[in-house]
Amino acid sequence: MLNNTALLAVGPDPNCNENVHGSDIERLVLLIFGGAVIFMQCGFAMLEAGFLPKHGVANILFKNMSDSFVGLLGFYIFGYALAFGGNFDEGETGIILGTRGFALAGVSSCELPFFLFQYAFAATSVTIISGALGTRSSFTTYMTYSFLFPAFIYPLPAHWLWAKKGWLLTGSSNVGVADFAGAGAVHMVGGMAALVGCMLAGPGFDRGTQSNFKRNPPHSIPLVVLGLFILSFGFLFFNGGSVVSYTLRVNTHALSGIGLAMINTVLAASGGGLAMVAHSKLRRGVLSITRAVNGSIAGMVAVSACAGFVQPWAALIVGVAGGISYLGFSTVLQRRRVDDAIDASSAHFAPGACGLLLGPWLFFQQGIVYDPSPDAFRRFGWHVLGVLVLSLWTAALSFVMFVALKLTGVLLVSEFADRYGVDRFEHDEVAYDVPRESNIQTLTQTS
Amino acid sequence: MLNNTALLAVGPDPNCNENVHGSDIERLVLLIFGGAVIFMQCGFAMLEAGFLPKHGVANILFKNMSDSFVGLLGFYIFGYALAFGGNFDEGETGIILGTRGFALAGVSSCELPFFLFQYAFAATSVTIISGALGTRSSFTTYMTYSFLFPAFIYPLPAHWLWAKKGWLLTGSSNVGVADFAGAGAVHMVGGMAALVGCMLAGPGFDRGTQSNFKRNPPHSIPLVVLGLFILSFGFLFFNGGSVVSYTLRVNTHALSGIGLAMINTVLAASGGGLAMVAHSKLRRGVLSITRAVNGSIAGMVAVSACAGFVQPWAALIVGVAGGISYLGFSTVLQRRRVDDAIDASSAHFAPGACGLLLGPWLFFQQGIVYDPSPDAFRRFGWHVLGVLVLSLWTAALSFVMFVALKLTGVLLVSEFADRYGVDRFEHDEVAYDVPRESNIQTLTQTS
Amino acid sequence: MLNNTALLAVGPDPNCNENVHGSDIERLVLLIFGGAVIFMQCGFAMLEAGFLPKHGVANILFKNMSDSFVGLLGFYIFGYALAFGGNFDEGETGIILGTRGFALAGVSSCELPFFLFQYAFAATSVTIISGALGTRSSFTTYMTYSFLFPAFIYPLPAHWLWAKKGWLLTGSSNVGVADFAGAGAVHMVGGMAALVGCMLAGPGFDRGTQSNFKRNPPHSIPLVVLGLFILSFGFLFFNGGSVVSYTLRVNTHALSGIGLAMINTVLAASGGGLAMVAHSKLRRGVLSITRAVNGSIAGMVAVSACAGFVQPWAALIVGVAGGISYLGFSTVLQRRRVDDAIDASSAHFAPGACGLLLGPWLFFQQGIVYDPSPDAFRRFGWHVLGVLVLSLWTAALSFVMFVALKLTGVLLVSEFADRYGVDRFEHDEVAYDVPRESNIQTLTQTS
Repeated sequence: MLNNTALLAVGPDPNCNENVHGSDIERLVLLIFGGAVIFMQCGFAMLEAGFLPKHGVANILFKNMSDSFVGLLGFYIFGYALAFGGNFDEGETGIILGTRGFALAGVSSCELPFFLFQYAFAATSVTIISGALGTRSSFTTYMTYSFLFPAFIYPLPAHWLWAKKGWLLTGSSNVGVADFAGAGAVHMVGGMAALVGCMLAGPGFDRGTQSNFKRNPPHSIPLVVLGLFILSFGFLFFNGGSVVSYTLRVNTHALSGIGLAMINTVLAASGGGLAMVAHSKLRRGVLSITRAVNGSIAGMVAVSACAGFVQPWAALIVGVAGGISYLGFSTVLQRRRVDDAIDASSAHFAPGACGLLLGPWLFFQQGIVYDPSPDAFRRFGWHVLGVLVLSLWTAALSFVMFVALKLTGVLLVSEFADRYGVDRFEHDEVAYDVPRESNIQTLTQTS
Repeated sequence: MLNNTALLAVGPDPNCNENVHGSDIERLVLLIFGGAVIFMQCGFAMLEAGFLPKHGVANILFKNMSDSFVGLLGFYIFGYALAFGGNFDEGETGIILGTRGFALAGVSSCELPFFLFQYAFAATSVTIISGALGTRSSFTTYMTYSFLFPAFIYPLPAHWLWAKKGWLLTGSSNVGVADFAGAGAVHMVGGMAALVGCMLAGPGFDRGTQSNFKRNPPHSIPLVVLGLFILSFGFLFFNGGSVVSYTLRVNTHALSGIGLAMINTVLAASGGGLAMVAHSKLRRGVLSITRAVNGSIAGMVAVSACAGFVQPWAALIVGVAGGISYLGFSTVLQRRRVDDAIDASSAHFAPGACGLLLGPWLFFQQGIVYDPSPDAFRRFGWHVLGVLVLSLWTAALSFVMFVALKLTGVLLVSEFADRYGVDRFEHDEVAYDVPRESNIQTLTQTS
Repeated sequence: MLNNTALLAVGPDPNCNENVHGSDIERLVLLIFGGAVIFMQCGFAMLEAGFLPKHGVANILFKNMSDSFVGLLGFYIFGYALAFGGNFDEGETGIILGTRGFALAGVSSCELPFFLFQYAFAATSVTIISGALGTRSSFTTYMTYSFLFPAFIYPLPAHWLWAKKGWLLTGSSNVGVADFAGAGAVHMVGGMAALVGCMLAGPGFDRGTQSNFKRNPPHSIPLVVLGLFILSFGFLFFNGGSVVSYTLRVNTHALSGIGLAMINTVLAASGGGLAMVAHSKLRRGVLSITRAVNGSIAGMVAVSACAGFVQPWAALIVGVAGGISYLGFSTVLQRRRVDDAIDASSAHFAPGACGLLLGPWLFFQQGIVYDPSPDAFRRFGWHVLGVLVLSLWTAALSFVMFVALKLTGVLLVSEFADRYGVDRFEHDEVAYDVPRESNIQTLTQTS
């Protein structure tokens, strides 16, 4: 007996268990908030396009578009299973990785909201890399890491930190790493992979001499700021939705925490942004927009370590610290002539680590400033360990991947393409079509 | 006894019936998801503006803005009543059209979330036309179809496919057409109307000779990609929310299906986009951004036929097929010198039909590949019929409308306006104010 | 006994009372809808940047970014407490202002969704001012009012109109001012402060002679229209979410009213926009995009006075009236040579007042056109009083603030900076990096 509407009862198990998969409202939060996090792809694309010089804008936009495509396949086929396969079926997941649910095989439809939310996070992490390498990575490189990173590099830290049995989460004697919304799993991991890629790529031909390692000015501040606002919108839901994804693993419900996480996000954005505004005004006498943008992002990255766990005043402090950590890291990288096209590794890795290290001091009631107990210090120790482990894991695997690409000679586009303009060379399209003849004509006629 | 807050008890019937109007959560889904679908207007506007040459950008933006205004009136006054009037009151609606609820008269406030969601769909359909005709349709033409289309052309297919008693939905012996989220009702109908308009308009003066029917390059890739990302965001909710609007008619609740529909949407976008990336790389040796953008849209359009009804792997296939159907249709149109300014009819009509025809093969458990039963083939037959009926209905009515406009000589702007630049001619505004004197001055001083 | 996930039980009182803080769904509405309202910051930024001439675009974007930062601090530290401190604890708030909850101290975590939503409203109000003063206000001025306005000027009207014991809300004998979503509290107040700032600043050096008080044309229509679409998206949730924030104070639940409020918002946008389209076509023979954009905004502003209280046809009327009020006010300001860079005071103050004055005539069943009872006329009287009180309060305090800034000589940037280009002078960054040499080279080579 066929019936059109019966078709909706798809998937192996439509009868969701509230205690396992969350309530109707919680799954709705994952879906709506997850949709808003996916929209961060748009923010990254606009931000990166705005920051780059004009001749590579089409290329970077193409990359941002394609990493949604390719990255999704990597996460769908391999990543989710390694990170969370079996996570909702007790006893079916290890402390290192998951081993089932490849290509969503056998996954309950009740688990799909969680999948969507986690995909949004993985996609965010991938995008950090495309921004850092900018227009210089070749198409082959780009397709390779966009697939491999969310398939094999990202999932393990995500498992360690967020799967029910992940070893960093569980720690020892009830104390482990609390990475609320991905300061470690998303931003440190993505930022470190970006950093390794940039270091292996070396500085671009247009980055000046030793004494003058300058970045090209942004070709469009409106795109940069548009990107920031879209990212800020997404971050609200990135941190807010994490309340649900974080608590799902322990079968508790904490909807009231979403408000706190979202408010802490805007406060940290303010803190990071204002710190950079103050710095650029006091040190250079100008109000630097690019610094303020990156400072604000850094603040939101930092607070993603603890947005659901700290009081608003503490979130403001974490934001300021995140901004400063970005500035410091960026300065060091510039001195060492690491060519990160849009400072992506500085704006993600450094504040991510900073947030993770600050959290154990500021966690409400349980932080060291509230209660300097042995357990609180042990937690700080676990967080230090977490920062090291995440850094090493990502650095090692990214190094292998990028070195392999470098040895086979496909890491970067040719210097010719770079000088000629990668937009014309690889895409036969330019970001802005300026009808040249007419302009020249006008000018000629006038002069 | 007046009371400020009692004012909120507006509308004839504030006591919503969960079985009829959906639960609180379901109505909230319609409102939030509907809001995100309305935001697709922004995506279309940016995409179309980006694709067009510079001198008509203000015009196309004006049109996108105004079709929200005028189209809403058409749908509010006539369209909703014809499509869904009486749909929530048993026995009050026919198999061909509804006959009550004009200008929302007598409509329960509990039904308004459904109205909002359906308005968002109608608005999407209208916008497809404005993109295809681009800057060449006159203001009169534009205002006419923006009103008539959502008022009288769009509503009937919507009724046939989505109202409880619609004849295509109910079919015979429990088998009919299952158009999950508007591949037929929204995209085929909008795309066909666009196609008819373009064919009657003929090619623009700037589209080259017979042997070289080229389109102008996009004036701004950033706007195109911004548009795509906004559309992708909206499509998540377009397909996701359809779970509720689709199941409302049978009084079942299927919140868990929303996750599937959203995931299938991103997978189809990837499939369509990657198919076009591969095609342009293999066939032309370049990575075409415009192809990837349209392929990705086509994938999402195609999967809107079945996003809630198929498994993720099937959604990927539907996406790839949607991308290919767009490419094929676009190639045919170009050979036949049909001048569609942004390939809108190819990116909506073709993948819409493709998705509807593929669905019956892939529907979970009930599709032909799962169970090649007579009923499954009958369903495919109904889908073929649906594709034909939707095409013919829309072609016929659009033909009458556009021919009437052509005979009265108001279909297009004058060729003078077209050559002069419709922005200056019709709006006395230009998309970008470049202070010419100063630029020339600078140049003169330098050279 | 520490436990990672127990950390989420933050805040003094995690046990929310449904009757006081709203149900789970209602708090979720405040959070999601509040997030969308915060995104209006992006819309304002793009709209303002698009409207301004090129040389101040970076500056206005910087301002929009920073007012999110600074304004949040002002509202977080002082504003929320003055407006709503103690509002959820019976008997703890006065009729003039609240006196507790500074920096959220002692505020229940259950109240945070309401805080987030109210912050979004305060931020909207601040942004109106930054648009009006455009690029001419100095950094000092800007930081000052961005902090003081949401901290001390905005909160009192918000208290009077929206706190449970606010004197304008409670009125007398159950009749007072019903400002549904901030036509008065947000738009009139923000618009009046903007107007006072513009009048004290005087016209800019580039605004022509007495006989020709022209504004520079928008430097980018795409940014303007992008801004409008984002604002329209936000307004849906601005007005929709207000159903919850409005009814929370009386412990009733009115989810079904959200649909009405959202539909009325799009109808009013259409009404305001179409009124301006018709006006510019009939009076000037062109289709003015800038008029349509501002008319549409004015429609949404006007209906924010009553979106949850009136029938759809009435919302359409309110929208048209809002558009006309904007046009009239803008014409008067132009004649009086008040230099409002983007007509922000006209598009917010005038339609805000217009909506408040129209509401009592059109409120469903209780409006004068339904029931011309003494109470209905008394309500109109209260609304007239409300319009006067809000105008005077804001004018007085803004006057003090801006005069103080003027007397200390810091109100505006120097005329030198203004002529030189404030982007280069204050930020050492320009909105668009046009690599000049290469362009010139190309031109030279060609000619």
